[in-house]
Amino acid sequence: MNPSSELGADLKSLIARADEALVRSLPPEDAPPIELHRAMRYAVLGGGKRLRPLLVYAAGHAFGESGSRLDAPAVAVELIHAYSLVHDDLPAMDDDDMRRGRPTCHIVFGEAMAILAGDALQALAFELLAHDVELGVAPARCVEMLRVLGRACGAEGMAGGQALDLAAVGRKLSLVELEHMHACKTGALIRASVRLGALAAGAPDEALASLDRYAHAVGLAFQVRDDILDVEGESHVIGKTAGKDAAADKPTFPSIIGMEASREHLQRLTDDALAAIQPLGAQGILLEELALYAAARLR
Amino acid sequence: MNPSSELGADLKSLIARADEALVRSLPPEDAPPIELHRAMRYAVLGGGKRLRPLLVYAAGHAFGESGSRLDAPAVAVELIHAYSLVHDDLPAMDDDDMRRGRPTCHIVFGEAMAILAGDALQALAFELLAHDVELGVAPARCVEMLRVLGRACGAEGMAGGQALDLAAVGRKLSLVELEHMHACKTGALIRASVRLGALAAGAPDEALASLDRYAHAVGLAFQVRDDILDVEGESHVIGKTAGKDAAADKPTFPSIIGMEASREHLQRLTDDALAAIQPLGAQGILLEELALYAAARLR
Repeated sequence: MNPSSELGADLKSLIARADEALVRSLPPEDAPPIELHRAMRYAVLGGGKRLRPLLVYAAGHAFGESGSRLDAPAVAVELIHAYSLVHDDLPAMDDDDMRRGRPTCHIVFGEAMAILAGDALQALAFELLAHDVELGVAPARCVEMLRVLGRACGAEGMAGGQALDLAAVGRKLSLVELEHMHACKTGALIRASVRLGALAAGAPDEALASLDRYAHAVGLAFQVRDDILDVEGESHVIGKTAGKDAAADKPTFPSIIGMEASREHLQRLTDDALAAIQPLGAQGILLEELALYAAARLR
Repeated sequence: MNPSSELGADLKSLIARADEALVRSLPPEDAPPIELHRAMRYAVLGGGKRLRPLLVYAAGHAFGESGSRLDAPAVAVELIHAYSLVHDDLPAMDDDDMRRGRPTCHIVFGEAMAILAGDALQALAFELLAHDVELGVAPARCVEMLRVLGRACGAEGMAGGQALDLAAVGRKLSLVELEHMHACKTGALIRASVRLGALAAGAPDEALASLDRYAHAVGLAFQVRDDILDVEGESHVIGKTAGKDAAADKPTFPSIIGMEASREHLQRLTDDALAAIQPLGAQGILLEELALYAAARLR
């Protein structure tokens, strides 16, 4: 097995850290409104790669921060990601019944509760991030972090990308259009994750541009790898139905530029991500590991 | 006509101010993703009482602020309100085809786009509020404002209240349960509006408790008046179908305590709101006018 198709021990322990922080941050299952709280917990705590929290921790680590200041942004980006999946899975959107090997939120709790759970998760993400200031993050920086998260979630970021995605079904996209769609739909939050980790760690302004280049490349690489796995992965390993995108007539990298060119593109993106963080030296080790994982993962 | 059933000139001009700020804050209709931007503008710019922005301005005015520092919170609370209406109107929720005399957002743009427009409006509200700091609001205060807004929108606020509302249809609620539902569903954002206006204006901490008592009372009064209008109002004046709540078997104040007791309750709430802001003296004039309007309005 390619060594980078699995995460190392450091990142695995950070997944555990993120999971613990998520459990602490979500409202309790036994307090009203019980059904809403249950739906929120179900949406967030059902596994997942925790890529975005890992990017927060890895970026923070690169600037010497490994403490609790990273937990709130790590939780916030995962709550946003989880809410977006709940809404994307709705019948009016992608109409998915299964996610991560379990029935989707609206199948278990009904559509109305799934919509509300997503809405409440988005609000919770901002609320939690606004508590970060209590852990010693300077208020002005905390405001900047909230602005970064807000922009990443909105019409010019994740929500806009999903709108582009809906408009793209059944249509032939160019490579540029496909990349723009992904850069919004998943890329905006991935870039925000890296930036939030760096900001919480007090990274200097001049470091943010190369980090952003790294995050942009990793986000796209992750997506190219997703599309490749959809073609050649095994359903029981990737945790969802292989060939699903092709069957739904969704534009993918292989469908637009072919499999071979997709592999080369993935390699270029990974090289670019690694080049962008080279100045960080050994401090960038976790970011490097994540870039390699995004490109080589088997699920 | 009761003089307080119409807004005075000052508040009317503040509605115009809020409308202008909303137009400026929403993404342009001619920039992609066009359909999403259109749905967002449609949801927000179709009229409405602008009660929440007015509460922001009125609370700010009470502490000597009448400038641009109030625009961002005024816009933010109205974006949140508009998004909540879009999601509440969805087929899976209240399934409403008409709102403010026009087809609802999902009727015009489709369900998927309506869900996304709501999501993007929520994100935009937080993003805009995080820009407030550029207008001279102290960063620590700005973070506090973001925390207030986040809490008001989430599972312990507006989203939680809508969950309680869904669970209440067809069930017999007590007065306490009904008030708790409204205190979450609409009250949380109304209280946040008053608090945000006060915070943006630099109100001292000791003033916030009585303002909150005012906002709690006004929020409930507004809802009691809504229920009374649903019974005795005329559809063409109130802008929606009279008798709709009763027909949908939704619990209302008149259905639980009767019409006469509802009127008395409304009077008590209004008295309480006015008592809470009495210490503000003449500075509280706009808050006073809004409390009287909430209780006497004809639509």
